Amino acid sequence: MSAAGAAVVVIGNEILSGRTRDANVQTIGAALAGIGIRLREVRVVEDRPPAIVDAVNALRAGYDWVFTTGGIGPTHDDITTDCVGAAFGLEVRHDPVAVDLLTRYYGAAEATDTRLRMARVPVGATLIDNPVSAAPGFRVENVIVLPGVPRILQAMLPGVLATLPGGPPIVSHTLTAWVRESDVAVDLAAVQARYPALDLGSYPFARDGRFGTSLVVRGNQSAAVAAAAAEVADFLARRGVEFSADGP
Amino acid sequence: MSAAGAAVVVIGNEILSGRTRDANVQTIGAALAGIGIRLREVRVVEDRPPAIVDAVNALRAGYDWVFTTGGIGPTHDDITTDCVGAAFGLEVRHDPVAVDLLTRYYGAAEATDTRLRMARVPVGATLIDNPVSAAPGFRVENVIVLPGVPRILQAMLPGVLATLPGGPPIVSHTLTAWVRESDVAVDLAAVQARYPALDLGSYPFARDGRFGTSLVVRGNQSAAVAAAAAEVADFLARRGVEFSADGP
Repeated sequence: MSAAGAAVVVIGNEILSGRTRDANVQTIGAALAGIGIRLREVRVVEDRPPAIVDAVNALRAGYDWVFTTGGIGPTHDDITTDCVGAAFGLEVRHDPVAVDLLTRYYGAAEATDTRLRMARVPVGATLIDNPVSAAPGFRVENVIVLPGVPRILQAMLPGVLATLPGGPPIVSHTLTAWVRESDVAVDLAAVQARYPALDLGSYPFARDGRFGTSLVVRGNQSAAVAAAAAEVADFLARRGVEFSADGP
Repeated sequence: MSAAGAAVVVIGNEILSGRTRDANVQTIGAALAGIGIRLREVRVVEDRPPAIVDAVNALRAGYDWVFTTGGIGPTHDDITTDCVGAAFGLEVRHDPVAVDLLTRYYGAAEATDTRLRMARVPVGATLIDNPVSAAPGFRVENVIVLPGVPRILQAMLPGVLATLPGGPPIVSHTLTAWVRESDVAVDLAAVQARYPALDLGSYPFARDGRFGTSLVVRGNQSAAVAAAAAEVADFLARRGVEFSADGP
């Protein structure tokens, strides 16, 4: 169990511009929760060296693990590898294993200098297997460098997570209640006060012109999560609120 | 035209846990681009006072504008208002105008203490109109505090943006090309070098088993954006690459 948890750096002009809606934070957050590691901060930064280097250095000092997404392809705007090298003061060089992987994937004739840029990693980095398109990710100390394409990131993530020391999964129960959150705020705060190790969240929504609230109980002590969720269900029932329990 | 641009603080346990995929960053990024303001950094932080206060203070010093999303509702986990007050060293009090708005919206009998918590703002804050559910956002200096519910944020944003000094909109042309990005990396870098004031981005994708790349030209000089996009179209055509130009 990692007390300090994890952070993500999204290298992403396309996210900041509004062109693309990020999908990787949700993937990583949920996957980390499954092995008991809490995602605690995300920074989305521009494709500029100081922005990337500063974010990596700030977060790797503050969290157990830092994931970066994006910027490890073959084009001029792919600068993450060099920035991670710079953050650690490490030279970036072609890794012979990565060169071999890419050469076999593309064929010798098509393994151009441009493509072999994707074989460059900071000296001493550990490669991360890419089962989709060969170009590896890598890890330097507690920094894990992954691509931005969601499908490829999703394929690479299980291999990475298997190498991290995890703990009991962080689980959540959601109660979807047809009530305004202000009408249950006091009751909910009372449950939160009884379970300080859990996170109780309240997320209002409107659907078909009706107001509702998702009440979420979350933590890595599954018995306590279930007990707190039962207390929430109790006060909803006592107040005559219509609700459904989505369970863990 | 704001050279230093804007940042967003997402107050969001539910984003970090993977429960919810953030939608507001894309909304704000695109809306700011429309008035010539570049979104340059996003931090997603936990619902904990030091995390929120530190992010607000770091970003308000570095950017022209900081938007916060989430955490201004009536429940125990809604701590953004107090954290923004703390970041500025300002006391948080009930605002009489906000109290009046909420009292009229809910009716005097239903305007409970819990609901009136949403009328608390740092002393001297300017209220931001909420045309959906009355509870206002607010602005303190360059920090703009908005709710996390996407539909309400979207309704409040136009009123906020109308008060900011903007500039020529940031526009983009996208060329969707059926080519691997490594095969156009050199050509693309050459165009980027000729237009240093623009951002040229390359985003690979796979669709129906074929590899493609979205080539995006972006900037606030619309004539230069069009010219650079035309150069990209030229090299794609010269290489016989099938592509479509999505235009500005």
